[in-house]
Amino acid sequence: MTYCVGMMLDAGLVLMSDTRTNSGVDNISTFRKLFHWQVPGERVVALMTSGNLATTQAVVSKIEERFKLPDERHNCVMEAPTMFQMAGLVGKTLRETIAERDEDNGPQAAGQFGATLILAGQIKGQAPRLFLIYPEGNFIEATLDTPFFQIGETKYGRPIILRGYEKTMAFEDAVKLLMVSFDSTLKANLSVGMPLDLVVIGRDEYCIKHERRITATDPWYRVISASWSDSLKAALDGLPDFPFHAGQ
Amino acid sequence: MTYCVGMMLDAGLVLMSDTRTNSGVDNISTFRKLFHWQVPGERVVALMTSGNLATTQAVVSKIEERFKLPDERHNCVMEAPTMFQMAGLVGKTLRETIAERDEDNGPQAAGQFGATLILAGQIKGQAPRLFLIYPEGNFIEATLDTPFFQIGETKYGRPIILRGYEKTMAFEDAVKLLMVSFDSTLKANLSVGMPLDLVVIGRDEYCIKHERRITATDPWYRVISASWSDSLKAALDGLPDFPFHAGQ
Repeated sequence: MTYCVGMMLDAGLVLMSDTRTNSGVDNISTFRKLFHWQVPGERVVALMTSGNLATTQAVVSKIEERFKLPDERHNCVMEAPTMFQMAGLVGKTLRETIAERDEDNGPQAAGQFGATLILAGQIKGQAPRLFLIYPEGNFIEATLDTPFFQIGETKYGRPIILRGYEKTMAFEDAVKLLMVSFDSTLKANLSVGMPLDLVVIGRDEYCIKHERRITATDPWYRVISASWSDSLKAALDGLPDFPFHAGQ
Repeated sequence: MTYCVGMMLDAGLVLMSDTRTNSGVDNISTFRKLFHWQVPGERVVALMTSGNLATTQAVVSKIEERFKLPDERHNCVMEAPTMFQMAGLVGKTLRETIAERDEDNGPQAAGQFGATLILAGQIKGQAPRLFLIYPEGNFIEATLDTPFFQIGETKYGRPIILRGYEKTMAFEDAVKLLMVSFDSTLKANLSVGMPLDLVVIGRDEYCIKHERRITATDPWYRVISASWSDSLKAALDGLPDFPFHAGQ
């Protein structure tokens, strides 16, 4: 399993992913699931991956190999004219990668090689955009109504984002919100694990604004993780008690 | 889908369930999923159900029919000598009900008629006990390490319970905690729906202490649902900001 969130704000884009991969609870590893590429001043792109690790690594390798092939560069994230076309290219690469494995392994394998991606970025002169790309190669785009996407183990960490998200929030607040969402997920699902990768893309900056790996020993993470329980309990205490005897 | 939580406290047992059933998002209904029986002063038993509605209704009907059959009464929740034996009887009834349907419908049907139950109660002279009963008829019991069980759509509402639960909490606080857990789930999953059923069993009281149906227009529910977002945002605000520039 995996947990990744991509969030669109007035200020730009924030992406956070965990790094745990597993095949069974007795076989866990740490792999990066958050990748980015940039032409500073012209474009910045970030990709997060969930699903079959061989598939997602192959997709990333294929994207990167195209950088070096002059004939292919127009088909690559570095030269796609719009984020929409880039999402189409990445989706096509994903679908083809999965289809190859499915074909090689026959009907029983179907589903086993699937993966889902979040693509985010901005090209100069255009707006920042955020896409969720399905294993079938099609994709949806975040809008004001649904300004964030989650992939992997999405449920534990969703309520806090639904409650806490505001598009006007500062990056500091968005990262705090994501940290709490991730911490809730980490506490509930062993297949999501530290460290976490964070990337922040400022609107109209066309470069990675912040990038950080947050480890389990990070002092800020430890404070958030430790004090969130107390904050929640205080918040619960502040709510009115259930009126057991009213209306009975 | 469904959401039910059974919680063991020093003060006794608290059970909450939603009432939505669905077969497809275009076919939803309201059905009770929380049942109870008592011999005041001697025993009190509550049962919550998730899964195939025909199965769970059949299990409840079979339990209740046994009350009326003199030969069967020793096999029924009203006369089982311990909660452990009662969990065994209910599990057996569940397993047999599912097996009948599976048999009638052949191999393709397997899984379709499954259901999971939470059984809670206390018999005079014994401790209150809380069980999670699987479709296979086997069951596990809540302990101090894991003092609550959830069935149905368990993930959205789990982090708040993990953070907020304390075995010493008063019923008022436990109901508030459950209300927030349910509200998070209601906001995220359409297949969990109002109204909610609540039952509170006080330790060594051998009767239902409180029973309430909480509707969507319940003033207390509306206050909790509306003010929890603000409480959470205030709690987030109180956490330290992410130090973007430290250590870079």
